[in-house]
Amino acid sequence: MLNDARYFDPVPTQKQLAIDLYNIARKAPILSPHGHVNPAVFADPDYHFADPAALIVQSDHYVLRMLYSQGVSYDILLSREDPYRVWETFAQNFYLFRGTPSGLWITDELETVFGITEKLNGVTAKDIYGKIEATLSTEDFTPRNLFKRFNIEVLATTDSATDPLEYHQRIRDSGWEGRVIPTFRPDELVNLNSPNWMGKIEALSDVNGVTVDCYSKFIQAIEQRRTAFKALGATAVDIGVGSPRTVKLTPSEIDRIFASALKGDTSPGDADLFSAHMLYEMGRMSCEDGLVMQIHSGVHRNHNPRVFERYGADMGFDIPIAAEFTNNLQPLLADFGDHPHFRLILFTVDEGTCSRELAPLAGAYPSVKLGPPWWFLDSWHGMKRYFEAVMETAGIYNTVGFNDDTRAFLSIPARHDVWRRAAANWLAGLLSRRMIDENDAEEMMMEMAVGLSRAAYNL
Amino acid sequence: MLNDARYFDPVPTQKQLAIDLYNIARKAPILSPHGHVNPAVFADPDYHFADPAALIVQSDHYVLRMLYSQGVSYDILLSREDPYRVWETFAQNFYLFRGTPSGLWITDELETVFGITEKLNGVTAKDIYGKIEATLSTEDFTPRNLFKRFNIEVLATTDSATDPLEYHQRIRDSGWEGRVIPTFRPDELVNLNSPNWMGKIEALSDVNGVTVDCYSKFIQAIEQRRTAFKALGATAVDIGVGSPRTVKLTPSEIDRIFASALKGDTSPGDADLFSAHMLYEMGRMSCEDGLVMQIHSGVHRNHNPRVFERYGADMGFDIPIAAEFTNNLQPLLADFGDHPHFRLILFTVDEGTCSRELAPLAGAYPSVKLGPPWWFLDSWHGMKRYFEAVMETAGIYNTVGFNDDTRAFLSIPARHDVWRRAAANWLAGLLSRRMIDENDAEEMMMEMAVGLSRAAYNL
Amino acid sequence: MLNDARYFDPVPTQKQLAIDLYNIARKAPILSPHGHVNPAVFADPDYHFADPAALIVQSDHYVLRMLYSQGVSYDILLSREDPYRVWETFAQNFYLFRGTPSGLWITDELETVFGITEKLNGVTAKDIYGKIEATLSTEDFTPRNLFKRFNIEVLATTDSATDPLEYHQRIRDSGWEGRVIPTFRPDELVNLNSPNWMGKIEALSDVNGVTVDCYSKFIQAIEQRRTAFKALGATAVDIGVGSPRTVKLTPSEIDRIFASALKGDTSPGDADLFSAHMLYEMGRMSCEDGLVMQIHSGVHRNHNPRVFERYGADMGFDIPIAAEFTNNLQPLLADFGDHPHFRLILFTVDEGTCSRELAPLAGAYPSVKLGPPWWFLDSWHGMKRYFEAVMETAGIYNTVGFNDDTRAFLSIPARHDVWRRAAANWLAGLLSRRMIDENDAEEMMMEMAVGLSRAAYNL
Repeated sequence: MLNDARYFDPVPTQKQLAIDLYNIARKAPILSPHGHVNPAVFADPDYHFADPAALIVQSDHYVLRMLYSQGVSYDILLSREDPYRVWETFAQNFYLFRGTPSGLWITDELETVFGITEKLNGVTAKDIYGKIEATLSTEDFTPRNLFKRFNIEVLATTDSATDPLEYHQRIRDSGWEGRVIPTFRPDELVNLNSPNWMGKIEALSDVNGVTVDCYSKFIQAIEQRRTAFKALGATAVDIGVGSPRTVKLTPSEIDRIFASALKGDTSPGDADLFSAHMLYEMGRMSCEDGLVMQIHSGVHRNHNPRVFERYGADMGFDIPIAAEFTNNLQPLLADFGDHPHFRLILFTVDEGTCSRELAPLAGAYPSVKLGPPWWFLDSWHGMKRYFEAVMETAGIYNTVGFNDDTRAFLSIPARHDVWRRAAANWLAGLLSRRMIDENDAEEMMMEMAVGLSRAAYNL
Repeated sequence: MLNDARYFDPVPTQKQLAIDLYNIARKAPILSPHGHVNPAVFADPDYHFADPAALIVQSDHYVLRMLYSQGVSYDILLSREDPYRVWETFAQNFYLFRGTPSGLWITDELETVFGITEKLNGVTAKDIYGKIEATLSTEDFTPRNLFKRFNIEVLATTDSATDPLEYHQRIRDSGWEGRVIPTFRPDELVNLNSPNWMGKIEALSDVNGVTVDCYSKFIQAIEQRRTAFKALGATAVDIGVGSPRTVKLTPSEIDRIFASALKGDTSPGDADLFSAHMLYEMGRMSCEDGLVMQIHSGVHRNHNPRVFERYGADMGFDIPIAAEFTNNLQPLLADFGDHPHFRLILFTVDEGTCSRELAPLAGAYPSVKLGPPWWFLDSWHGMKRYFEAVMETAGIYNTVGFNDDTRAFLSIPARHDVWRRAAANWLAGLLSRRMIDENDAEEMMMEMAVGLSRAAYNL
Repeated sequence: MLNDARYFDPVPTQKQLAIDLYNIARKAPILSPHGHVNPAVFADPDYHFADPAALIVQSDHYVLRMLYSQGVSYDILLSREDPYRVWETFAQNFYLFRGTPSGLWITDELETVFGITEKLNGVTAKDIYGKIEATLSTEDFTPRNLFKRFNIEVLATTDSATDPLEYHQRIRDSGWEGRVIPTFRPDELVNLNSPNWMGKIEALSDVNGVTVDCYSKFIQAIEQRRTAFKALGATAVDIGVGSPRTVKLTPSEIDRIFASALKGDTSPGDADLFSAHMLYEMGRMSCEDGLVMQIHSGVHRNHNPRVFERYGADMGFDIPIAAEFTNNLQPLLADFGDHPHFRLILFTVDEGTCSRELAPLAGAYPSVKLGPPWWFLDSWHGMKRYFEAVMETAGIYNTVGFNDDTRAFLSIPARHDVWRRAAANWLAGLLSRRMIDENDAEEMMMEMAVGLSRAAYNL
């Protein structure tokens, strides 16, 4: 059974303050301005989730990589032949997740979504599988109903820049009142080394009905897609790049690089310059169309070539690298950092940059905000370190609340609950030290749960 | 009302230990060996501070940049037309400082210096403004009287190497017993890329009465200035550089670089070499004249060119970058690191270097000491992380106590109070875990409040 | 007197949980899979330790460097003329170790090994010296007896790749039941810039009885030595390198570099490539012979040339530098990261790499494990930060328990005790927040004390 005061620091006076603060925000609506839920599940009013293995194990690369790290084969884990066998393997190894965020989220999800209070292990595997399966097949256990039950006010998906947004259009057309909005993600287009760059350019041509055969048409096509995303409710853009380097090339330089790329001729230096220039262009576009710009950078993707070749991307082998923002972002911020329509939300998996670069940047430029702890840092202690490293310099008002950043729709309440508890716990620590007073604490609590997200993402 | 046990961890037994330790040091004199108070305010016995806006808002770039980061225009904030309007804007936005060091310092200063216990906001703005204004105009509310009231034993200012030290001379001549001493800061001279390098060379010639037309005369002039500073009580030098790189060039190399620079011809590589060589020379001079050498490095100055062009330097846009000390300082330490007259105090805004490089260096070289948490790290949690990252490796005796590093004279007691409370809290944590005993804790408390500074800076 | 609940966090409920967890593991046997105790002390059944100065001061570079950092001359500290004078200097300066791991270890060792409960200082120096001396001369105070008294299950030494392992052979031949095993350490062989590289190649030739005159014979000789180490019980290899860069050179490239090196002709670039290639080769060998591979990297050795020239290596002047693993290890892990016989244990003194690179790598690759906090990080707060930075991402099962990594045999129980207390304290924190339950906590406690080491090192 989940303890109602779970995660809070154990000093009794502080714990009570944390409980009181948490209770202010625990039932507030969920704003999910950045995540990876598939919009298709909302397009069909009668959508039902597949079996427990597909839902909880096979679609969650945080879970997969931990099992893989202990020698469990992906051939076994990813097999669709016998879902129960996959589930049993997971259950037998669930002890590996002791003290990890995945362990907490799944335990919470099992109890709060499925009503299961038993601990998952090899002995309980079968019983729990049966209970989940039964719930999944219940008629009203649909994404739309859960969206309401979870009290989600808005959910942003992440969609390729070339996606025709068919499911988002269908959601709109259906008249359903749930607010599910797309986010524009042009990663493959801005990375000339992406294995499928040429294919993406063709897709971009197709979706716009214009042939992209030069840089100016490329930019025009991207701007058209941004407009199309906006028309379906998008308020933000997200860009995943290796490095947050930005640069403004001359028209002739960028024309040359793009023309060469179209001929399949790209040097590594040109690819870097192209990405850096495209970050700059995306900044310029955000000043013009008001879409919030997010940058997720600093990751070596597909580090394990055997796993990538056999199982593809997003299989747990994206490994962080050292990041640098101060110099890299300077050209972008020099031109747009003070622009009243520009908002730039920065994410990092290199914690050292939080107190060193990101909090000082967010605490100075009106456009810059610091995103919540991302990925490996989206954890109880990751949040604690983030609050302590960031908030004294940036203040909470230059941060943006929480992102669940997940594919796992059913884990969304659990993830936001961890954040709200962590925020309450941190505020209770400040309050019990009299670094803030009760009124501050209560207002900050609601801001961190809801207000900062709503403001930062224009929701 | 300020809580007397504010900031301490809430575990009752530990909190009581912290209170007891704090009480040992709370009334100890303040040593301020590094800061930026204007010496002019002490030269005139009847000096009075200007209005509340100029005193608390417009002269504090920590405050300014936070307001700017939330879209408040510097045109409004820096206007001298209507000080109350500036103050009101600040008061309305004071909630932005919740949980920040500036918020704590200002709240403390309002109560302990001005007797104001109301919370600052849009409603109380006018009343508080009036109270501050009234106090400022009180006859005995002069810097000299406050110096005594604050129980300051010594206050070091920071003065350009070419400053004729007129105010320091006047303070001396006046016979006032307050100890205000200069610190030699040659930043613009050692940075060939400084916009005003040639002007500074001329100023150096003028102040010494010798024309600096070659490297050897440059060195001679710097040595003369150091002697002049020493004569007015200086015990330390401070150098702000982008990188702490050190190198010993050959005489012909350095002569060539300096001669070229005098002709206005400097490559970026030469400028870097010159700074690196000058750090080495400053080390050599410290061995000879015994002035303590401080290095503040690792900052990208004036990151926002629009703000710099319009409002100048020190407007909140100095952003830290990654730092490296181990390799960079090796040439300097190889030659002077064991010298009995050499003392080098290192500062960082890249926290990762604390446990990785600075504590190991300070815990080995007799000359090297680690300065207190600097700038963005001068905060409750910054201090906590510093104690935890540094003290186990370096021991407290290779650190130097606290620097307030401030222009804001009236905030000095509040800043030292945070440090003393943080130190007491940290020691209480060690004591309650029995990692030290009562006697250790009491001696360490006084060292951290007073003794370490006095020893490290030869005060 | 040591407090039985020392080091634990002071919140009463959590402290009691910590005590209970610690009591589960406090008497568990000690596994010491990585350290630097001299095997000679076990080869002779009647070995007795020298005087207190040699034992506790002169052989411990953690102690030496702290005294040196405060101006105590190595000429005094390292003198063998008057051991008591050395001891007295140490005792008078023992206050420097307040709050440091050395301070805790030595205090613990004095009480638990020698029965001394007085605090060490100038006043008690003589009395304590006498007591230690008396104990050292006791007939049954031998390493073998202490090995049993300390309840050591296995102790791994670190031995040069060219060491004939005479003492290990003697231990085996003596029929003594204590398990002391060698670890293969080829540092000087894989570093072409090592001052004694050619001498080491000769030693390698000699110990194998084959002339190493080309790369293939070099590899063959190393493989033979690994086999010889294995025959005497070794389960692991350890490599100390400046950078963990790995690369697979072509046969002709590596042949050329090796042949040039034999002629004394090595460029810095070649030396780097050689080390990087040798890390790759060591990985390949581990896949074949099953010896666990350890890498200790990221240190600038012998930073102080005066100390190195006069007193040699390991005198406290090895200073960490920034480390990078994600890119550097990719070539090695691309080929061997999934190999079922490969195990790679990584160590860092750059804490930033823990959450950024090492935990993600260990949490994905089946071969990769993360070693315990090393060197400067082997401390109470270092362990706390390590648990918080690593465990949520990697889970405890991708870590390897504790290494004491010490030359100081008598400090081994104290060091493992700190780890067990730190682990109990961390687990009690998780348990009191209900992030794990009682059963999890108890199993994790025993894993962290014993189980993880045994599994990771195949003990």
